[in-house]
Amino acid sequence: MRIALGISYHGQHYHGWQSQPDGQTVQDRLEHALATFIGSRVSTLCAGRTDTGVHGLMQVVHFDSPVQRTEMSWVRGTNRFLPADIAVQWAREVPDDFHARNRAESRRYAYVLLQSAVRPSIDAGRVGWTFLPLDGEGMREAARHLLGEHDFSSFRAAACQSHTPVKTLHAIRISASPLRSKHPPAGSDARAVPTCYWRFEFEANAFLHHMIRNIMGCLIAVGQGHQRPEWMRGVLQARSRDAAAPTFAPDGLYFLGPRYAPRWDLPDSSALFDFLPGANAQDL
Amino acid sequence: MRIALGISYHGQHYHGWQSQPDGQTVQDRLEHALATFIGSRVSTLCAGRTDTGVHGLMQVVHFDSPVQRTEMSWVRGTNRFLPADIAVQWAREVPDDFHARNRAESRRYAYVLLQSAVRPSIDAGRVGWTFLPLDGEGMREAARHLLGEHDFSSFRAAACQSHTPVKTLHAIRISASPLRSKHPPAGSDARAVPTCYWRFEFEANAFLHHMIRNIMGCLIAVGQGHQRPEWMRGVLQARSRDAAAPTFAPDGLYFLGPRYAPRWDLPDSSALFDFLPGANAQDL
Repeated sequence: MRIALGISYHGQHYHGWQSQPDGQTVQDRLEHALATFIGSRVSTLCAGRTDTGVHGLMQVVHFDSPVQRTEMSWVRGTNRFLPADIAVQWAREVPDDFHARNRAESRRYAYVLLQSAVRPSIDAGRVGWTFLPLDGEGMREAARHLLGEHDFSSFRAAACQSHTPVKTLHAIRISASPLRSKHPPAGSDARAVPTCYWRFEFEANAFLHHMIRNIMGCLIAVGQGHQRPEWMRGVLQARSRDAAAPTFAPDGLYFLGPRYAPRWDLPDSSALFDFLPGANAQDL
Repeated sequence: MRIALGISYHGQHYHGWQSQPDGQTVQDRLEHALATFIGSRVSTLCAGRTDTGVHGLMQVVHFDSPVQRTEMSWVRGTNRFLPADIAVQWAREVPDDFHARNRAESRRYAYVLLQSAVRPSIDAGRVGWTFLPLDGEGMREAARHLLGEHDFSSFRAAACQSHTPVKTLHAIRISASPLRSKHPPAGSDARAVPTCYWRFEFEANAFLHHMIRNIMGCLIAVGQGHQRPEWMRGVLQARSRDAAAPTFAPDGLYFLGPRYAPRWDLPDSSALFDFLPGANAQDL
């Protein structure tokens, strides 16, 4: 029978999702745990591969199991053999025509960015960082140029294996936690930066390799005032990686999960949103 | 001249605050970074020592420096030599009669607890965990028995070096992030647990060794329904460690920092509250 699992993981100590010979990936750990639990090897297929250092709030995989277990047993039995930074959140028996990648109608990612005069510490590896305050309205204006169906070659890594650079970006939502500026942290009013978290949410039918980290580099260039919002349209139209800003750090990137049609009746990831840093971000 | 620093750190990979021969403590890393930055060794004294695995949102230290630097330079220069999970947040030159421990009028801690059918993963090491839903009103009723000046011997570790078990607990505040229960995560309605973060804030003139982790063990025993709220009064009155619940895990414990009189004009830690998991917790 076919089983679907929803999985959360902290990506900092893994070489991404996809299985590799060194075994240091999330998929390797998951398949090892499943094999230990049920006593035979299975191959999992995921909704969206994540890179080194990228986190998963709700990755979804499916596999065909030679054995039957209750849904609760899949969750607890597998988690017993997973490392502390990976956990199965739910399990469902699904019809044989369910497919974690091909049935996904869209994917959602979030990028969490710490704005602070001081680099991350408690949140190191979990957030990106800007020490310059960001202009939310400018970033929103820049982001609007990217919405819809476009050739996103300017934001595509050289190693990207997608058969087409044309994707449809449904939404970019930019929010921030309340500014707390009563006490400028670095002791100099002139360069004081109010501490807050910025949260960027992206939804598209699919994403190219490094697409979000490349878009983030450009949005932050606008937010910091180095580029004007209209510059984003030129970057998109250039269809060349050279036109865009450098790839931004993976640390603050979270795969929120795929969306499937309601008929599959699978959990969505909203129950886990509080796991993100800056959970109190709101529209400005 | 005397310098005060505010410091944030993720305690998971350190053997607590206090310097040890193995050098694997936060104080060791801080003093090493300061020595590298200014070229001579200084001894720091902190407001509140934290245990292995406990985090600091705003630890405060002071030391006497043989050299002069700007406040911004203290922050950036020291952070350059600190590991990624420790960072100086601010620096202030203070009068010679300032003393990080003796001048602290109270200390504040927070404990963040994940309520979920599934153990932590993205937040492993940063939160405690309960797989049973908690009764907030019962815990609040139990907590009220502890407020005020008491002999807290029932919550004191054997290794505690305090000269007295009598402390004054000013406040215990219990809040929770909004429940997200639309999709029970473990696939079984009967045992479904709404996912949320609980946040417990404690303020006292000072705390005994393991006092908060021991109180947390008792509050959770009440919250899970194993004990009635009135049981807490008996535990307190017993003045015996045997009367209380086991010491709870350090993972979710954060030293929020000391409070000093306004005349010292030092930053408080509220600018950093969003660094805590479950930053959107609210009074129920």
